[in-house]
Amino acid sequence: MSNVGNKVKVKYFGSEYEGILLESSDKNMHLLKLTNGYNVGLPRKGSKVEVLGKANLGLKANTLLITKNKSLPNVSLISTGGTIASHVDYKTGAVHPMTKPADLLGKIPELKKISNISVSAPMSIFSEEMNPEHWSKIAGFVARELNKDEIRGAVVTHGTDTLHYTAAALTFALEGLSKPVAIVGGQRSSDRGSFDGGMNLICGVHYAISDIAEVATVLHGTSSDDYCIANRGTKVKKLHTSKRDAFRPINTVPLAKIYPNGKLEKHNGYELRHSRKIKVKSKFESKVALIKYYPGMSPDILKCYEDYKGIIIEGTGLGHVATTTWLEPLTKLIKKGIFVGMTSQADYGRVDPYVYSTGRALTNHGVVYLEDMLSETAYVKLSWVLGQTNNIEKVRHLMVTNLRGELSTKSHPNAFLY
Amino acid sequence: MSNVGNKVKVKYFGSEYEGILLESSDKNMHLLKLTNGYNVGLPRKGSKVEVLGKANLGLKANTLLITKNKSLPNVSLISTGGTIASHVDYKTGAVHPMTKPADLLGKIPELKKISNISVSAPMSIFSEEMNPEHWSKIAGFVARELNKDEIRGAVVTHGTDTLHYTAAALTFALEGLSKPVAIVGGQRSSDRGSFDGGMNLICGVHYAISDIAEVATVLHGTSSDDYCIANRGTKVKKLHTSKRDAFRPINTVPLAKIYPNGKLEKHNGYELRHSRKIKVKSKFESKVALIKYYPGMSPDILKCYEDYKGIIIEGTGLGHVATTTWLEPLTKLIKKGIFVGMTSQADYGRVDPYVYSTGRALTNHGVVYLEDMLSETAYVKLSWVLGQTNNIEKVRHLMVTNLRGELSTKSHPNAFLY
Repeated sequence: MSNVGNKVKVKYFGSEYEGILLESSDKNMHLLKLTNGYNVGLPRKGSKVEVLGKANLGLKANTLLITKNKSLPNVSLISTGGTIASHVDYKTGAVHPMTKPADLLGKIPELKKISNISVSAPMSIFSEEMNPEHWSKIAGFVARELNKDEIRGAVVTHGTDTLHYTAAALTFALEGLSKPVAIVGGQRSSDRGSFDGGMNLICGVHYAISDIAEVATVLHGTSSDDYCIANRGTKVKKLHTSKRDAFRPINTVPLAKIYPNGKLEKHNGYELRHSRKIKVKSKFESKVALIKYYPGMSPDILKCYEDYKGIIIEGTGLGHVATTTWLEPLTKLIKKGIFVGMTSQADYGRVDPYVYSTGRALTNHGVVYLEDMLSETAYVKLSWVLGQTNNIEKVRHLMVTNLRGELSTKSHPNAFLY
Repeated sequence: MSNVGNKVKVKYFGSEYEGILLESSDKNMHLLKLTNGYNVGLPRKGSKVEVLGKANLGLKANTLLITKNKSLPNVSLISTGGTIASHVDYKTGAVHPMTKPADLLGKIPELKKISNISVSAPMSIFSEEMNPEHWSKIAGFVARELNKDEIRGAVVTHGTDTLHYTAAALTFALEGLSKPVAIVGGQRSSDRGSFDGGMNLICGVHYAISDIAEVATVLHGTSSDDYCIANRGTKVKKLHTSKRDAFRPINTVPLAKIYPNGKLEKHNGYELRHSRKIKVKSKFESKVALIKYYPGMSPDILKCYEDYKGIIIEGTGLGHVATTTWLEPLTKLIKKGIFVGMTSQADYGRVDPYVYSTGRALTNHGVVYLEDMLSETAYVKLSWVLGQTNNIEKVRHLMVTNLRGELSTKSHPNAFLY
């Protein structure tokens, strides 16, 4: 029987922890909310749980119901988990996913002045647990919702850890995207004063009813609550572990600034909303790797990737590795039919094989230089491309073809450290 | 017999390339400077070289000799290769390392107004070829020079690709550093109008005669030629593939701004110059890995690291991986006595195992969270620590102890995207 919500004392190897037992995403762990607000995880194995008090889990019937307002646009919210899509029940300390529209509206009443929101929750997981199968599932949900005539746009809530990877995945999987998709997360949980998920959701809904038919991350643009920035799903990275404005555009500027009052300042070219149906191409290949190179890295590790279909090397500078030791084993992989692409661990800028002999040697041997594509986007794109075709020539061609704004011929002058 | 400097035509699988044959760092490749300025590398195997014209390699005896000026400080320049330490001979197109002081002074006459410079060149390689053995060698050279009473400081010239890794390596290897060490590179070669190496060298020499006894990277602070920034060797990353101001401080601000006229604005606390001798601790362990995590990454890859002594995981967000699949194999490695440290692929901020159950589970199983240490620095530090001791408890202790400014308890408010 579950003790979730109960006040408990957990004994674990001589230490005692008192708190409220939370729902744990890891079935091998107890998750406990301590009185100091921190959550601790304790392995079930070796833990002894003593119940100190019973939970009061009965949620009050929320009086805020979705009263559909015909003058407002309809937005579909797809909840996948993460900090933003949870709320802390102050009676029990338990973290609940906000799967009930009433929960959501109760938390952020402004939302119902902007749109009618329907909620679905295909999963509820920490975003570090996301993998290509989850991307497929989310893409399917989003397309199903957006292909309903009455839906203006979608908002996906997601943990921030890998939010940018999922943003890229949805961008590729949703072909002919006709409506806006905002991916929204929160860096601070809703039991903290600095909770950012509320404003991000409001801005996300404003984005979802806009005319920008692109997948974009929508989160704080500054460390204050001034505005959010919408960044193209293929051109964004989480650059800070905890700041609310952690998501920054790379080699470009945001698509738009979005103020909580609905004001939308556009800063970039974008795809326009249209009425054609979206095609879902949600197959991702799982035998794809992203390998960050470092000085002294032994090429022996490449032997472990011989059964992979594709590899992105996050090289140094303009796209380099030590060719004296790496050229031969990389060439071997390429000759086996494995795609090898090159990006840079310098976040900004573009790789270029023509400046130094190192790059030239690599490109001559079949390593494909991926211009100004982010490493994370390149990994996602390669997984997606290999899900669509096994023809290596097609793969090589598609990887250097700009499909979803992931490649740009020149950088915006204000892009560096935007 | 070498054809370096000769005008040649190289035939390679049906294509013909005409240009000046350059010195190649890769013994399997011909390196050719085409008339458009680009360098191409062509595999020796399968290439046919036809000499079109003989080189004129005889360097003119340079009239600029080092006339030692007793009123100026003495600086030791250690050249390791890379774009900055090369110059293009316009007669031949060949790239030569600047190992002769006269070459250097001839290029940047301002230098001899600031200091008397002695030059040594322990190696001449592209920086992507650097490995821990090179770090040891450079550290030995730097210490030998700095332990001479008459030397005020050192300037190391280095390719920019892995300059920040070497900066961290020297920081750890030079214990009790008593004098400044500037690591200087160039993003643009000296045959381009935007050549940055000259100003970087001038600023590097100004740094080397300052009172800051730290290893610092010294490169452009802006995309113009206004000033350089000196960044602590353990807190700096190359964030752009090609911009001249690519090297940025992470989680801190620069140690100093340095203007080419010698003006030095200090922005940060630093170690002060002293007269004690430097101890060289230049042993680095090579069985150390840096692994960047990505969604869907199979933990099977960890099997390839079972003979390693230490691993840095570049996790997501606050320092996470998918514990559902990774916790067990990571625990296995840790039980074998392999050190596993956690950093974040979000460049800025700090990892924290106490916010979510994921982090708690990892830390409970022995993964060591490395605060606000850069992944690159963590890799270098772990290689160095394991070079000093095999005692795993000592390793765990040293990795979370601030030895060279690599860990800070709080971030500077202006640090993000500085």
